[in-house]
Amino acid sequence: VIALLTDFGISDSFVGIMKAIILTIAPETVLVDLTHAIPPQDITAGAWALATAVPYLPPDIIMLAVVDPGVGTKRRAVAICWGRRIFVGPDNGLATPLLLAEEPDKAIILDRPEYWLEQPDSRAISSTFHGRDIFAPIAARLAHGFPFEFLGSKIDTASLVRISWERAYRDGNIITGSVLVVDHFGNLITNIGSDLVAELFQANDINATVGNKQVHARALSFGAGPEYEAFWYPDSSGHAGIAWRNGNAAEILGITRGTSVRVCLY
Amino acid sequence: VIALLTDFGISDSFVGIMKAIILTIAPETVLVDLTHAIPPQDITAGAWALATAVPYLPPDIIMLAVVDPGVGTKRRAVAICWGRRIFVGPDNGLATPLLLAEEPDKAIILDRPEYWLEQPDSRAISSTFHGRDIFAPIAARLAHGFPFEFLGSKIDTASLVRISWERAYRDGNIITGSVLVVDHFGNLITNIGSDLVAELFQANDINATVGNKQVHARALSFGAGPEYEAFWYPDSSGHAGIAWRNGNAAEILGITRGTSVRVCLY
Amino acid sequence: VIALLTDFGISDSFVGIMKAIILTIAPETVLVDLTHAIPPQDITAGAWALATAVPYLPPDIIMLAVVDPGVGTKRRAVAICWGRRIFVGPDNGLATPLLLAEEPDKAIILDRPEYWLEQPDSRAISSTFHGRDIFAPIAARLAHGFPFEFLGSKIDTASLVRISWERAYRDGNIITGSVLVVDHFGNLITNIGSDLVAELFQANDINATVGNKQVHARALSFGAGPEYEAFWYPDSSGHAGIAWRNGNAAEILGITRGTSVRVCLY
Repeated sequence: VIALLTDFGISDSFVGIMKAIILTIAPETVLVDLTHAIPPQDITAGAWALATAVPYLPPDIIMLAVVDPGVGTKRRAVAICWGRRIFVGPDNGLATPLLLAEEPDKAIILDRPEYWLEQPDSRAISSTFHGRDIFAPIAARLAHGFPFEFLGSKIDTASLVRISWERAYRDGNIITGSVLVVDHFGNLITNIGSDLVAELFQANDINATVGNKQVHARALSFGAGPEYEAFWYPDSSGHAGIAWRNGNAAEILGITRGTSVRVCLY
Repeated sequence: VIALLTDFGISDSFVGIMKAIILTIAPETVLVDLTHAIPPQDITAGAWALATAVPYLPPDIIMLAVVDPGVGTKRRAVAICWGRRIFVGPDNGLATPLLLAEEPDKAIILDRPEYWLEQPDSRAISSTFHGRDIFAPIAARLAHGFPFEFLGSKIDTASLVRISWERAYRDGNIITGSVLVVDHFGNLITNIGSDLVAELFQANDINATVGNKQVHARALSFGAGPEYEAFWYPDSSGHAGIAWRNGNAAEILGITRGTSVRVCLY
Repeated sequence: VIALLTDFGISDSFVGIMKAIILTIAPETVLVDLTHAIPPQDITAGAWALATAVPYLPPDIIMLAVVDPGVGTKRRAVAICWGRRIFVGPDNGLATPLLLAEEPDKAIILDRPEYWLEQPDSRAISSTFHGRDIFAPIAARLAHGFPFEFLGSKIDTASLVRISWERAYRDGNIITGSVLVVDHFGNLITNIGSDLVAELFQANDINATVGNKQVHARALSFGAGPEYEAFWYPDSSGHAGIAWRNGNAAEILGITRGTSVRVCLY
């Protein structure tokens, strides 16, 4: 199984081309789209989407992830391996949460053009679509059984690029964090992670600000939330989220990604 | 084959996570997306999309349908069986048109956690994403050959929730109905169903209002419709629709879902 | 493998229905979405998306392409064959770039209803959704091994509809062309094709106008482009494109598809 995550959108045939290439090289592959709607060039949003999905992927998954503002520059193209789990994509921090969650076994730089796409009509490899020309063929060859080490030169896993990946922290009875992402429903997912979520929901009372808004209510499901008021809920990602019952919290509150969050526990 | 229909959108990895879970449990499954663009929490729109697709699905289809504003509340999670056809989803009326079309053979409530998702890192089951934690694993186990009755306790099919599902009706030479849905092209699909469509198109003349607009023209295909005028056409769903040739009828007419429709036949 | 390209969008279940029909007739088929976001009824945009993807498709691909403003009129439904590669769709010019790239071996008109969809509930074939009623079943039967000639009557390949498909041309040191398409990232892809791209990038200097804007900079990758200025780059489609580093060139420049382009080489 190859899981795909990109910022390519679905209005062009970029993703379809990558899939066609994979199925040409490895016809038995099963393809799963995580999402292709990562905001263009937004490595952090891509890393978050990947982090959310990873615990639910099959153990021998190949993650083909392409959010790649540096395509065609000197940023490295890499494959990273944790046991039977492999990441294929640019070395620009997209894999950060995976690297933080578990130290990888090994990594390679994709420096062997003989395993890239054989260009039709003897075109040169593109400098703008390595998803097609490098990453998809490499993922397909891995799925097809090529040994990891054949596809590139070994590199030190400590050299892999990591982006800043801040989690909310607690200081006394104050949790300080921010809004990590706004989901399709307009729920605000914060970086208040599994260690602090329980405290937020078990406190007798809370006093919380999100940007310039107050959000005091708490509920364990959307349906149990108050009407006409934003409320905290335990998001399925394991983080604390803010929702509006039958409404779009982000739009109603006017809150966007990155907004700071402060929760006082009582 | 499992057919998926949700209001999850495709900008997050919700759908990808469900698919990854299914493929982990039942790797041989073929997945078909009906749509994930049901407006958030809109059970009626989800029921319509399901109803439109059902006649064209393989006979042994498992329909995994999640439009679930009551997730985490006391609304039941169910599986419903008609011969080899199975619906898995919330018991909130989403299956109404299927229940109206044919009495089901049996139904169960999904009350056996041992068949739900084995949570990674011993997390608790979420109260906001039963698509991931209950419905996808159950659908996957059914696809994998688990007997229906193993997965939950039998319930009376008469107890299944049904939402109001009004069809247009004829009284004398007047058909009264409403706009059920606006499709991707801006066509207005009405609840004037197969029994009345023929009458609308065979009448010598019609006099029709849709909201505050007059739509008199009729055509049997888009290309045969008049230019610069809205016209009735027989939609592929078996219902009467209103289109604008090479244009978006909903936008041009300013008509939305739910608008009332009145057709006088001559 | 069947590759799908339509203007059906993904908000309705049109595409899901086509896939379900294919999997019912030919359960072993692998389906790849090229895109379903072709602007409604825009044959030229569909032809471009198809042309871009074709060089990367498996050799024995069946392309099921439906952008079909004339559905239900006298426009022909056809299948076209180049060796093991087959196009199934309306005869309205959607296949133009494929026909220009290589003369087909043979073509048929889909005039044998016994191979179309067996309508549920003995409905009549629709006049608005031949994707469901004709093209998907025909593509599925081809994938399932039906001989091409069984599915319709032979027609002269010279009779297939071709739309105007202009490429940029060079006259002295002036290249004259236009913007073919705007991609998901806002890059402007021009009709300056592979013959002229090299000249544009190898010239000592250029002086270029796109609509009423000047675009002089050139770069071989996005990351190598200047900041705060539009620049030419070699697009992965083999055409010359115009991008804005970490931005949406089309929005920033206010340029849309069809805008004329003039490049003076020095």
